[in-house]
Amino acid sequence: MSIITLAHGSGGLEYRELLEKILFPKVKLKATPGGRGLDFEEDSAIIRLDSNRLIAVTSDSYTVKPIFFPGGDIGKLAACGTINDLAVMGAKPLAFLDTIVVREGFRIRDLERIFKSMITVLEKYSISLIGGDLKVMPKGSLEDIIITTMGIGVVERGKLITNDGLKPGDVLIINGGVGEHGAVILAMQLGIDVGRLKSDCSSILDVVELASKYCKIHAAKDPTRGGLAMALNELAEKSKVGIIVYEDRIPVREEVEAICEMAGIDPLALACEGRVILGVPREYAENIVEELRGKGYKDASIIGEVTRENPGRVILETSIGSHRLILPPTGELVPRIC
Amino acid sequence: MSIITLAHGSGGLEYRELLEKILFPKVKLKATPGGRGLDFEEDSAIIRLDSNRLIAVTSDSYTVKPIFFPGGDIGKLAACGTINDLAVMGAKPLAFLDTIVVREGFRIRDLERIFKSMITVLEKYSISLIGGDLKVMPKGSLEDIIITTMGIGVVERGKLITNDGLKPGDVLIINGGVGEHGAVILAMQLGIDVGRLKSDCSSILDVVELASKYCKIHAAKDPTRGGLAMALNELAEKSKVGIIVYEDRIPVREEVEAICEMAGIDPLALACEGRVILGVPREYAENIVEELRGKGYKDASIIGEVTRENPGRVILETSIGSHRLILPPTGELVPRIC
Repeated sequence: MSIITLAHGSGGLEYRELLEKILFPKVKLKATPGGRGLDFEEDSAIIRLDSNRLIAVTSDSYTVKPIFFPGGDIGKLAACGTINDLAVMGAKPLAFLDTIVVREGFRIRDLERIFKSMITVLEKYSISLIGGDLKVMPKGSLEDIIITTMGIGVVERGKLITNDGLKPGDVLIINGGVGEHGAVILAMQLGIDVGRLKSDCSSILDVVELASKYCKIHAAKDPTRGGLAMALNELAEKSKVGIIVYEDRIPVREEVEAICEMAGIDPLALACEGRVILGVPREYAENIVEELRGKGYKDASIIGEVTRENPGRVILETSIGSHRLILPPTGELVPRIC
Repeated sequence: MSIITLAHGSGGLEYRELLEKILFPKVKLKATPGGRGLDFEEDSAIIRLDSNRLIAVTSDSYTVKPIFFPGGDIGKLAACGTINDLAVMGAKPLAFLDTIVVREGFRIRDLERIFKSMITVLEKYSISLIGGDLKVMPKGSLEDIIITTMGIGVVERGKLITNDGLKPGDVLIINGGVGEHGAVILAMQLGIDVGRLKSDCSSILDVVELASKYCKIHAAKDPTRGGLAMALNELAEKSKVGIIVYEDRIPVREEVEAICEMAGIDPLALACEGRVILGVPREYAENIVEELRGKGYKDASIIGEVTRENPGRVILETSIGSHRLILPPTGELVPRIC
């Protein structure tokens, strides 16, 4: 391994190897005292403020191509992605910084539209945009635009949600169909008609808040790069539990299946940008799903459960009752998906 | 104005117009309650934690070309730049996140070297790297690498330094020669031999700490994009004071002057990446400069003073005693300088 490949950007195995074997070993200070940082590889890092309050911080770069797509654009994606990284930790987002790198010759009208999309999402949740940066690169050195966001939220110690919290007996809920963002981006990159399909790009803050009224959420994860396959594997590995999911309960829209068939890709490996997997005690699951459906999440479903057996593994029970392992995706399925 | 030009990335007038006239008016929530955000355009935003403690946060994207240069590389630059944005607010840096966007085909050895440079600076100041992101873009869509950093620090309310704090009678100190980073980058882009000149890329945290032992620092600013000319104009404008600086006291190395002459650029408009302008009460200035010189900042100097006259203006007294206005630079002097 001597050069960077697209697979290193996939969020999958190669990505984790590059980070865990090559970059992270160079870092001695991986967290602030009492906090959670690089070692945990959660969606946000945690800084301990005082005995009761924690700050959650997250940072991501968005390079999606195309920058405008059905259901959103790079600005909406950046805002939602960052809010979601805070929300899955149980944090309430407070403030936001954005740095924009744009190429010379980019249309200011497009920049305005992207910026407006981002602000619209932030203001819906009363999140302040408190700072950032803007750089311009000459023609030929950057295709269009990269947005990097930094989100800051607060979380009470007792409400922190982490990936190691799943317990045998928990059930897993998802708030909607999988792979819709990935399918839209993939189809557009391949020149396939997306029909009425839209990216699921949206904030899942409401979903986490709704569920947390019922119970302490044991784990929450948004299945972005690497899709449901990657997210479930991370949860199983970090919580040291087995996971079984049922093929006929995982909501996949027809259009997503059609695009995946044409491209030869598993929908479970395709990124979502507005979905969250919640691990909750069994007794609350039905009520949470029912309320989610009532609130417009029509495809919200219980997709599986957590087992003591097969720790670290994710098993799919197919519609005919057979079982197969779901592995973390390898290679780069769709470049520049987010 | 319908497309982005290199001048929009300069940190100068066009940059401020794009932000202040086009983007910022779309934002309603520009700060968290009791904090300082977009409206202040300081080097860091401020979030109020409680009545006594503030959090400083900053985010910047680094696109410098070439990525390796005498005196540093894009990793060292990213770490120092972010530390400096916190330091000029009087904040103590605590934690750091970095997101790296790199092109397919980039050498992993170069990525390691850049990452190591960044970590070396952070660990020198006991700053933890707590999170981040890595994305890969296909060949042809990004030239090499972009690093975006997010720095988080804490500052006691009484120690917050802001750009509006200069007072008539204050004197202005700089900790070393101006324009050395800009001159190195410019020369390399033009293919001019840089000789023994190195970028001044370094942290100015020690400098601010040293000065703050003597007195409350009234204002601190690192003259990056737009150089001393931009930084002094911002200080004069925000503090509503006049500034006079003396040409023969501003340290400019011969090599910087030679490169500027060849390129037809004013050294006062060239970026520094390891310099800070401190505004302090006159009675402490000599001692501060003396201690700085003793600590290895051999070119540290008192370069000027703050006046009640000419508020918002920066005047240069030349070596022959004539006066001229120093204006904020316009246009893009050096693309991808940081």
